[in-house]
Amino acid sequence: MSPPTTKPIHFFDITSTLPSPRQSWSPNTLRTRLILNYKSIPYTQSFISYPDIKPLLTSLHIPALNDGFLPYTLPAIIHHHHQPSDADSSSKADTTAINDSLPIALYLDHAFPTPQHPSIFPHGPTSISLAIAVQHLISACISRSRALIMPRVWNILDPRGQVYFRESRERGLFGGRRLEDVRPEEGGEEEEAMWMALSGEMEVFVKMLKGDGEGVREGVFFEGGKPGYADFLLVGFLAWFERCDRRMWERMMGLGDGGLRRLWEACEGWVDGMGEDAGWEIS
Amino acid sequence: MSPPTTKPIHFFDITSTLPSPRQSWSPNTLRTRLILNYKSIPYTQSFISYPDIKPLLTSLHIPALNDGFLPYTLPAIIHHHHQPSDADSSSKADTTAINDSLPIALYLDHAFPTPQHPSIFPHGPTSISLAIAVQHLISACISRSRALIMPRVWNILDPRGQVYFRESRERGLFGGRRLEDVRPEEGGEEEEAMWMALSGEMEVFVKMLKGDGEGVREGVFFEGGKPGYADFLLVGFLAWFERCDRRMWERMMGLGDGGLRRLWEACEGWVDGMGEDAGWEIS
Repeated sequence: MSPPTTKPIHFFDITSTLPSPRQSWSPNTLRTRLILNYKSIPYTQSFISYPDIKPLLTSLHIPALNDGFLPYTLPAIIHHHHQPSDADSSSKADTTAINDSLPIALYLDHAFPTPQHPSIFPHGPTSISLAIAVQHLISACISRSRALIMPRVWNILDPRGQVYFRESRERGLFGGRRLEDVRPEEGGEEEEAMWMALSGEMEVFVKMLKGDGEGVREGVFFEGGKPGYADFLLVGFLAWFERCDRRMWERMMGLGDGGLRRLWEACEGWVDGMGEDAGWEIS
Repeated sequence: MSPPTTKPIHFFDITSTLPSPRQSWSPNTLRTRLILNYKSIPYTQSFISYPDIKPLLTSLHIPALNDGFLPYTLPAIIHHHHQPSDADSSSKADTTAINDSLPIALYLDHAFPTPQHPSIFPHGPTSISLAIAVQHLISACISRSRALIMPRVWNILDPRGQVYFRESRERGLFGGRRLEDVRPEEGGEEEEAMWMALSGEMEVFVKMLKGDGEGVREGVFFEGGKPGYADFLLVGFLAWFERCDRRMWERMMGLGDGGLRRLWEACEGWVDGMGEDAGWEIS
């Protein structure tokens, strides 16, 4: 019986005009990138333009995530895996194609287990509960960031992505207002009010990284000395600002007692890691 | 050198007119009660009326928690502990008096360690991060519950507590509106809208208890098979409704796939546990 063989994971990210390794910018896709890099999973990657996401997922038979405003989303991965069958010693070929960051995280952690690959849920169900809670808290931060950052996201997209993003976001998120009219003036009162609301939501992460309220804890991660998926959720969010609005990102880094900066610095290598670029023709 | 001796923990709860063991009703104080019962820490207890909380804490030299609307809060505990001094074999007497549920939780877990007492943070920093995240999420649920439950809280308070509660809450939370005018009509549209907002916030707990989105996980707790402080935060919140608004509580129990009910049932014994009643004269 031959040992199981696998082709690399293929990872679909959303493209931008930023030069590599900062081409990856989405808070959602970066979660998956961080996992692949942290777990040292070999992977190839394709950067996809916004209007191509739906045709891509349809061609991969990945169903719509929801019936809301954004039913087709990245990240997505494909995993071709050949496993020897127990029954007849012949090999069985399977292909898994999934999207949505949490299912991908659970899949990758299962498919690439310890001890070869460190777990992103190092404390089992506790880590998973923590990740789901943090994802919920990050969603609140993303909502609070919309008017601040969405107009800046547009700046870094490829031309086809810009057209799609403007049309869908202006209609779906901002009631038809132009992106240029949504972003408050830099340094003005309105921006300050939005920042206060956002940084208020982020206060919980400062507390969590501090741990026991006394500032005495080991390790820079939510789980202490070992990174986990919960960290990658927050770091993906921070990287979104780092890519799109460096001034606001600097402000974020200054929150609390430096815990966010320490977390960022510990994870930066996994934010920037890249797979091998591989073209992808959408059928 | 004689072994360390300790007097029981003394626990201050907020009183109500409900008969024991349901006399304890506050989502905040119940967190501490759950810890004491789960960890099998011997304790005495006093039930305090709202207007007596500030004089009590002042007499115990417990400072105001914040400069907000409710600076003096229960739960609070007192711990008299005699420990043999390393230096001279004489014994040293210490008294710890603290309030605020998370500092109390961290204190009790440290002062009553394993293996004699099971930990409420069984996965160390991961459990603490989880608890801080859940506390934040529960605060959002408490905010969403105010208009629904505060008028019902009044019903179960002692007469002095009722006067204090009405005055402080009508002024501090409801802009001077009477408690009777805040609660929407049972079964009406306004109540339904509030319920939808609240149950929407609670959706994250349903997901967390389900675990991996596939409904396959071991154990009924956030951390799998072992209860932790994060569970007690949610159960304290659920018990608040069970005590004050049984109809809404039944609706909560029906959320999701039964995970909240299973959690409740697993924790019910610790919700109802009582310490030995001990009078307390406020100096």
